[in-house]
Amino acid sequence: MVFWTLFQKFTEKMKYNNMNEFDFIEKYLSSKKNSNKFSLNFKDDVGHVNDNIFSTDTICEGIHFFSEDDPSMVAKKLIRVNISDIIAKGIRPMFCLLNLSLGKKANIDWLDKFMKGFHSDLDFYKLNLIGGDTTKTLQKSVLSLTIFADLKGKKFIKRSSSKKNDFIYVTGSIGDSSLGLYLRKNKNIKISKKHSDYLINRYLLPQPRIDLVNFINKNASASTDISDGLYSDLSNICKTSNLGSEIYFSKIPLSDAAIKIIKDNPSLVKNILSGGDDYEVLFTGPPNLDRKKNVTKIGKMITGNKIKLIDFDDRIRLDGYKHEI
Amino acid sequence: MVFWTLFQKFTEKMKYNNMNEFDFIEKYLSSKKNSNKFSLNFKDDVGHVNDNIFSTDTICEGIHFFSEDDPSMVAKKLIRVNISDIIAKGIRPMFCLLNLSLGKKANIDWLDKFMKGFHSDLDFYKLNLIGGDTTKTLQKSVLSLTIFADLKGKKFIKRSSSKKNDFIYVTGSIGDSSLGLYLRKNKNIKISKKHSDYLINRYLLPQPRIDLVNFINKNASASTDISDGLYSDLSNICKTSNLGSEIYFSKIPLSDAAIKIIKDNPSLVKNILSGGDDYEVLFTGPPNLDRKKNVTKIGKMITGNKIKLIDFDDRIRLDGYKHEI
Repeated sequence: MVFWTLFQKFTEKMKYNNMNEFDFIEKYLSSKKNSNKFSLNFKDDVGHVNDNIFSTDTICEGIHFFSEDDPSMVAKKLIRVNISDIIAKGIRPMFCLLNLSLGKKANIDWLDKFMKGFHSDLDFYKLNLIGGDTTKTLQKSVLSLTIFADLKGKKFIKRSSSKKNDFIYVTGSIGDSSLGLYLRKNKNIKISKKHSDYLINRYLLPQPRIDLVNFINKNASASTDISDGLYSDLSNICKTSNLGSEIYFSKIPLSDAAIKIIKDNPSLVKNILSGGDDYEVLFTGPPNLDRKKNVTKIGKMITGNKIKLIDFDDRIRLDGYKHEI
Repeated sequence: MVFWTLFQKFTEKMKYNNMNEFDFIEKYLSSKKNSNKFSLNFKDDVGHVNDNIFSTDTICEGIHFFSEDDPSMVAKKLIRVNISDIIAKGIRPMFCLLNLSLGKKANIDWLDKFMKGFHSDLDFYKLNLIGGDTTKTLQKSVLSLTIFADLKGKKFIKRSSSKKNDFIYVTGSIGDSSLGLYLRKNKNIKISKKHSDYLINRYLLPQPRIDLVNFINKNASASTDISDGLYSDLSNICKTSNLGSEIYFSKIPLSDAAIKIIKDNPSLVKNILSGGDDYEVLFTGPPNLDRKKNVTKIGKMITGNKIKLIDFDDRIRLDGYKHEI
């Protein structure tokens, strides 16, 4: 989630200045000579130096996690949102550095649990922690991870390399995480415990698609993880590949829990397109990849610079969605 | 300033648990199998993967910088405290990733100035920014940089490789930065504007010794930057090299400004030994290096596990210093 995507979140804060993420990169980064080659001119999710690719991501208490969250889950979330970017490139992450800036609520008990979850995920994903820095903050905790992989001569899949007529695919189901966050914040929503647990867990504990890393490397023409929302991440593939796309709303894969909650609360349909934090993979490639693996074809890359949303029911209210197009 | 040293600052907060940085590393890090090889078992300032060395450092608003500080200087400080670790290894830093977690006071004007200072130092130190992440926090800003260098087959100087009878050297003058911070916090201290400006500037804008990077690589047997204070950083060389040391207090190089302020305020002498943030280099090596370059010999590595402080005037009050030995 290097620069490109997360600036979007940042610039939400700066809307009064009419600055979006492209302005930001243009203004502060891509015009600078000391940044172009190794950053891929900030057009991708990763930086590339020699035979390594790099990514980094920060999560903040009160924004990306909460002080009442299980510290072990916070540690796993930190690792998983980070490795997700590299996995989406079709590469296994291998090394990381940890920056722990611990706030007032991070006492020894919190730290014990955090480090336990952290090591558990290091083991699970076969990651090496090679360094870090720990300090305190005056108030809230801010946790960063920098992650990298040795390509060992393998290619990695860029975001900017999609071709006209490539098909568009997604892994897993879309929108679950943001619906889980919504449920967490709106405890009055009526939904079965099974569905509620499923959605909230999708929010709390991302499952980056390490199982598909080789498949993506072998088959995808362009790829990104879905961290900012399907629409936004597809938009990034389009812009950086100088193409448009058309997608079928009806083909976007939804979980049973998502279908149920949207049926009962139609305005939540916007979470499918603009809800973030799914950490599934959005990629483009040749036809019929959905016959080789359990992935879903949702559309096609076309000329132009727009995303055409086909078969979307306009009568459904899309709070704040349309203006993003 | 990977793990080892900064945990010390962190653990100041945890003193009620009687946990120091060695306990911390032992408890959370060095006993773990997923960390040993590439982290150099957390015995050094850097991690080492393939032909690259890595370091990372965080500065927090309200602790390492203040909201009224010139944002351009904050950016330079962020870069300089980071590259200092790699420079002390006798290696030129080359690449970095930036994590900007911006608090309430970081508006567009702040960011403009910050990025201007940031690019100015990228240019000055010939660093490539290859990626990063930007988000907001609920309150204060937290800024991290991860920095690395391609060794290109060169060796790097470890902290743990000092030998018995090696001489101990420092670059520049010691204690200025912490005296500058003291002056900033205590505006009633009588001192000439020239001396005050000098000391405060040493605190605000570190000058890592990039000019000595080749000299250190060629001549030092062990090396570290002085970020936590001379005593603490020498202590780390001793512990990781399984040696003791003896140093002459009278030989520690002091600036004219430091001599003057300590003469007028004797209790400030403790800043020479325990004041941090000088970002000079502390290294060991053969005799007579001080004849080749403008560095100062202050003592010798010996057997044992203590730092002997020779010719220190015990009558000078050392608030909180002695117990650190």
